[in-house]
Amino acid sequence: MSDPKDLHGVIPYVATPIDARGNIDRKTLARLCEHLISQGVHGLAPLGSTGEFAYLDFAQRRAVIETVVETAAGRVPVIAGVAATATTHATAQAKAWRDIGADGILAVLEAYFPISEAGVVAYFTAIADATDLPVTLYTNPNFQRSDLSVPAIAALARHPNIRYLKDASTNTGRLLTVMNRVGEDLGVFAASSHVTTAVMLIGGRGWMAGPSCIVPRQSVRLYDLCRAGNWNEAMALQRDLWAVNEVFARYNLAGAIKAGLAMQGFDCGDPIAPQAPLGPEALADIRTALVRVGAL
Amino acid sequence: MSDPKDLHGVIPYVATPIDARGNIDRKTLARLCEHLISQGVHGLAPLGSTGEFAYLDFAQRRAVIETVVETAAGRVPVIAGVAATATTHATAQAKAWRDIGADGILAVLEAYFPISEAGVVAYFTAIADATDLPVTLYTNPNFQRSDLSVPAIAALARHPNIRYLKDASTNTGRLLTVMNRVGEDLGVFAASSHVTTAVMLIGGRGWMAGPSCIVPRQSVRLYDLCRAGNWNEAMALQRDLWAVNEVFARYNLAGAIKAGLAMQGFDCGDPIAPQAPLGPEALADIRTALVRVGAL
Amino acid sequence: MSDPKDLHGVIPYVATPIDARGNIDRKTLARLCEHLISQGVHGLAPLGSTGEFAYLDFAQRRAVIETVVETAAGRVPVIAGVAATATTHATAQAKAWRDIGADGILAVLEAYFPISEAGVVAYFTAIADATDLPVTLYTNPNFQRSDLSVPAIAALARHPNIRYLKDASTNTGRLLTVMNRVGEDLGVFAASSHVTTAVMLIGGRGWMAGPSCIVPRQSVRLYDLCRAGNWNEAMALQRDLWAVNEVFARYNLAGAIKAGLAMQGFDCGDPIAPQAPLGPEALADIRTALVRVGAL
Amino acid sequence: MSDPKDLHGVIPYVATPIDARGNIDRKTLARLCEHLISQGVHGLAPLGSTGEFAYLDFAQRRAVIETVVETAAGRVPVIAGVAATATTHATAQAKAWRDIGADGILAVLEAYFPISEAGVVAYFTAIADATDLPVTLYTNPNFQRSDLSVPAIAALARHPNIRYLKDASTNTGRLLTVMNRVGEDLGVFAASSHVTTAVMLIGGRGWMAGPSCIVPRQSVRLYDLCRAGNWNEAMALQRDLWAVNEVFARYNLAGAIKAGLAMQGFDCGDPIAPQAPLGPEALADIRTALVRVGAL
Repeated sequence: MSDPKDLHGVIPYVATPIDARGNIDRKTLARLCEHLISQGVHGLAPLGSTGEFAYLDFAQRRAVIETVVETAAGRVPVIAGVAATATTHATAQAKAWRDIGADGILAVLEAYFPISEAGVVAYFTAIADATDLPVTLYTNPNFQRSDLSVPAIAALARHPNIRYLKDASTNTGRLLTVMNRVGEDLGVFAASSHVTTAVMLIGGRGWMAGPSCIVPRQSVRLYDLCRAGNWNEAMALQRDLWAVNEVFARYNLAGAIKAGLAMQGFDCGDPIAPQAPLGPEALADIRTALVRVGAL
Repeated sequence: MSDPKDLHGVIPYVATPIDARGNIDRKTLARLCEHLISQGVHGLAPLGSTGEFAYLDFAQRRAVIETVVETAAGRVPVIAGVAATATTHATAQAKAWRDIGADGILAVLEAYFPISEAGVVAYFTAIADATDLPVTLYTNPNFQRSDLSVPAIAALARHPNIRYLKDASTNTGRLLTVMNRVGEDLGVFAASSHVTTAVMLIGGRGWMAGPSCIVPRQSVRLYDLCRAGNWNEAMALQRDLWAVNEVFARYNLAGAIKAGLAMQGFDCGDPIAPQAPLGPEALADIRTALVRVGAL
Repeated sequence: MSDPKDLHGVIPYVATPIDARGNIDRKTLARLCEHLISQGVHGLAPLGSTGEFAYLDFAQRRAVIETVVETAAGRVPVIAGVAATATTHATAQAKAWRDIGADGILAVLEAYFPISEAGVVAYFTAIADATDLPVTLYTNPNFQRSDLSVPAIAALARHPNIRYLKDASTNTGRLLTVMNRVGEDLGVFAASSHVTTAVMLIGGRGWMAGPSCIVPRQSVRLYDLCRAGNWNEAMALQRDLWAVNEVFARYNLAGAIKAGLAMQGFDCGDPIAPQAPLGPEALADIRTALVRVGAL
Repeated sequence: MSDPKDLHGVIPYVATPIDARGNIDRKTLARLCEHLISQGVHGLAPLGSTGEFAYLDFAQRRAVIETVVETAAGRVPVIAGVAATATTHATAQAKAWRDIGADGILAVLEAYFPISEAGVVAYFTAIADATDLPVTLYTNPNFQRSDLSVPAIAALARHPNIRYLKDASTNTGRLLTVMNRVGEDLGVFAASSHVTTAVMLIGGRGWMAGPSCIVPRQSVRLYDLCRAGNWNEAMALQRDLWAVNEVFARYNLAGAIKAGLAMQGFDCGDPIAPQAPLGPEALADIRTALVRVGAL
C-alpha cells in the first residue's frame, strides 16, 4: 500500500449503496471497492459528499467504513470521512474509524449557527488530536455552512497530523494561494469541480472526487499523463472527462453517480430521500457522457 | 391544557442544558420548564434552533423530549422538534416523540445537496403522515440549507395534520403573503427575528422564539396587549423587548440564551463546541438588556 | 405645501414616461403628476427605482425633474432622486435639482467596487453638504451594490440636512432598530416591500413606493386609517393593497408600473431596454389586482 | 498591428489617470500607454473595471478612448469598453468609439433590475449590430448585477461580430465548459482572478487584466512561456505573479493599480471618490509584491 503519509493520485469518493429497506448494501459496496482497486485507483474515500454522509447516522457510517476497510485489505489507503456539527461527535467518529482500521481521516465541519474562525480551527484541531492518522481538511462552500479561510488553513497546516487539503470550491486561484502559503506543509487535492489537469499543473497531488468512482480507469490515465508532463495529451483526455463532470454538476450528485454505477452493473439503489431519483432525460445524458469516454 | 389543535400565544424554544461531560442536564431542563410554565407561557418547543438540535444526536434529543414532556405533564402543549436530512430519520423522530407523549411536531428540513420543491413537499408530508400530531412547518433560511416557497407552503397546508407555520426570515411581507394565501388552513407564528407586535397586527397567532425563554413574563404580557388591541401600549413594550432580540441577533444565539439563563439562575452550560462561549463584553450587553426589561 | 422639513404620508415614486424615440414624454409625465396630486398624495418622488433612474442619463434626468417641479408648482413637495457611483456626479445632480426647484433630495449610492463604510458616509455627507435641501437616505440592498449599516445611518443622522430614511429591504425589524437608535433625528419611510401598516404601527411617517403611483387614492386612505389608529380597518385595506405589491414583486417593477398606468390611461411606453415589456399573463395579473382594489 | 480579428496575448486594462480637478489626465494616460506598448503588450483595453468606467460619464469616457487610440496609433489594437444599463446608451458608446478609431469593443452589461436571459442576449446583440468591430463579451459576476449563462454565451457566439469572451469569475472549469461548447466561435481570455497559466493550458488565448498594467513585461514573458509549452518555467513565474494578483484582490482594485503605477512613475491620482485611497499598510504590501517580481 502507498504510504498514507504520502497520499497522491486518484482517490474516488465511494458511493454508498443502500438496499430497499434503507440498510447499507455491504455486498455491493465491497464489489464496487474491489472494482475501483482493480482499475488502479490510489486510495478510497468513503463518506465524502458523494457517499451521502450527510444522510447517514452513526451506525450506517460505521457499516460503510467497516466494509471498505475490510475490502481494501491494505492494498490502498482508506481515507474515512468524519463530519459533524458538534466537536465531540466528530472526534468519536475519528476514533471509531481508526479502531476499524482506516488509514486516514477526511475531516468536514458542518455548521448550523455560524462558527468563528477560532472555533473552526478548534474543531479540526480536535479531530487531528483524536488519533494519529493523517488528516485531510475538506471544505465545500457549496454544501456546508462553513468555509476554511486561508489563514485558518495556514494555522491548521502546522498541526503534525494535518497533512492534506481537499477544496471543493471552483476556484483554482485559491488553490494556488494555499500552495504558495503552505506548500511545504499541506498537500493539495483537487475536487471534481476543478479542472484537475490545471490543478496538477499548479502543483496538486491528485484529486478526490465523486466522478472518479465512475470513470476510475480514465482518471488514473489522466493522472499518469499529468505526472509524465504530457500536458497536451492530458488536456485532450481532460476535455472528454470534463463533460462527465459537467453532467454530474447538472444533476443531484449522489443521484447521478448512483445512476451511472447502476449502468455499470453496480446497483446502489436510489439517492437517499428526500433526494429524488433522476428522470429519463438525466439518465440519457449520463449514459451519453459515459459512453463517450469509454466507461460504458 | 390548551388544545394543540388550536395553538397560540408565546411558545418559547427551550434551551438545552448540558453538563460538564456533555450529557443532557435533565434536572436543570426540568427546572427551566417549570419556571416557564409558571410565567404563563402557552406551550414549550424543545429542539428548536435555540435548543441546539443541530448539535445533538438521537439519544440526546430523546432525553430532551422525555424531560420536557414529563415536566409539562399536560399543563401546556409540548411541540417537539423533528429535524433531519434524510426522510426516514425524520419520521423515526416524529414517531418516537409521539410515543413519549409530545403534543405536536415542529418540523425542520436540513439540506445538504439542494432538494427540489417536490422533494421538500415529500419530506414534510412524510413527517405529517408519520403520526396524528399537528405539525408546525419551521423554516429558517438563515441556518438551514433549504427554504419553503409560498407554493410549497400552500401545497403542504392542504395536509390535515399540517396546521401551523413558523417563519424565521425577517420578512413580514412574506408572512402576510402566506396568510392571504392559506389563512384558513395554516396558523402563522412569528420568530424572534420578526417584530412580533407587527405580526400580531397582520393576523399572527403568536410566536415561537428563543428570547421568550429568557423574558417569558414580558412576552406573555406583550401577547395579551396585542390580543386586547391595545397597540400603543404593546408598541411601548415591544420597543424594549426588541432591544433584547437585537442582543441575541448580535451574538451566537445559543450562547446568548444560555448566558442569560445562567444570570437568571439556570446554569445550562456552554453552547455546544465548536460554538464558543460568549466573551465579557457580550455578557455585559446581555445583562444590560435583561435589566432594562426587568428580567434580571 | 406641506413643509419639506416635515415630510410624511404617501409619496409615490413617479414612473418615467418615454416616447417611441427614447425621449422623456413630458406631457404624459405632467398629466400623471397632476393626477397623483388630485388623488391626495403628500409628495412626489421622481427618479426613484420605479422611475428607472438607473437607465437615464443626466439630460433625461433633468427633463424629468423640470417637468415634475413645474407641474407640482408648490402644491406638494418634490423629492428628487440623486444617484451615482462617483461622488462628484451625485453632488452635481443635487445642485442641479435644487436650482430647478426641487424641495428635497432622495439620495442613492450606486456601487461598482465595494465601498467602505467610511466611503459610504462620505458620499452621503457630500450630497447633504451640496445644498440646503432636506435629504432622504434611500437604501435598496436588492438592486444597489451597497447597503447602509445601522452605524452608518446613525452617523449620517447627525447631519442637519439628513432628515429621512427610506429602506427598501423587507426587514421590518431593521426599521424598528433604526427608530430605536435615531428616532429623534431621522423620520423613517416604508417601501413597497414593507407592509406599510406594520411600519406605521411601529412609528413610520409614511411610505415612498412605486405601487402608490398606481393606487394613490387607496394609499392615501390607508395612511389616514393608520394615522387615526383605526388598525382593524387599515389591515382590511392593507390585505387588498398587499396583493398589488405582490404582483409588482413578481414582475419587472418598471414594466409592471408602466403596464398598470397604461391601463389607467397614462401611456408611459415600454420599460427601458434591455428590460422587456410584460407578457399577456403578467398584464392579466396586474389588471386583476387593480380591479380588485378599485383602481381600474 | 496584430489583427483585431485574431486577438491574443496580454491586453492590459488601462488605468484612468485623473487630475486634481477630476478631469482625465490625458498626458499621463498617453505616457502610460506608450510605456505598455514598449513593454510588448499585445493590445490595450481602456474602460475596463480597472479603468473605473463605472465612475466616468460619457465625456470622460470619450476623452479616454481618444487618448488611447491616438497614442496606440495602430501599433496595437485598442479594445474599448462599452458599458451601460440602457441598450441605447451602449450602442451610442460603441458607435462613438468606432468613429474615434477603436479596433474592438469590450462589452459590459450593467444591470439595475434583473434582466431576463433574452434581454441579456438582446443587449449584447444590439452592441454587436451597432458597428462592424469585433466584440469581446465581458462578464464579471462580482461587480455587475448580471451574469452571462453558458447558453446565453453560446447564443451570442453565433453573431459574426462577437468573437471573444473575457470571464472574470474565478472558475476555471466554467472557461473549459465554454471552450468545449463554443471553442470554434469564441476566443477565451482569462482575467486577473484566474491563474492565467492554467487558462492557457486549457486553451485560452491570453488575458485581459488590470494587474498586467503594472507588470506588463513579466506578463508578456509568462505568455511567451505558455505559448512555447514551457509549462514548468511558466509556473515558476506564475507563482510570483500570482502574489501580485493576490495583493490586488485584497484591496480596492483601482486604488491598488493606481498606487502601483504611482510607484512606477505614473501619477494617476486617487481612485475616484467615494473609493478611498489606500493606506500605508496596503502601499507597503503592493511595494513588496512589485519589488519581488522586478516591477520596481
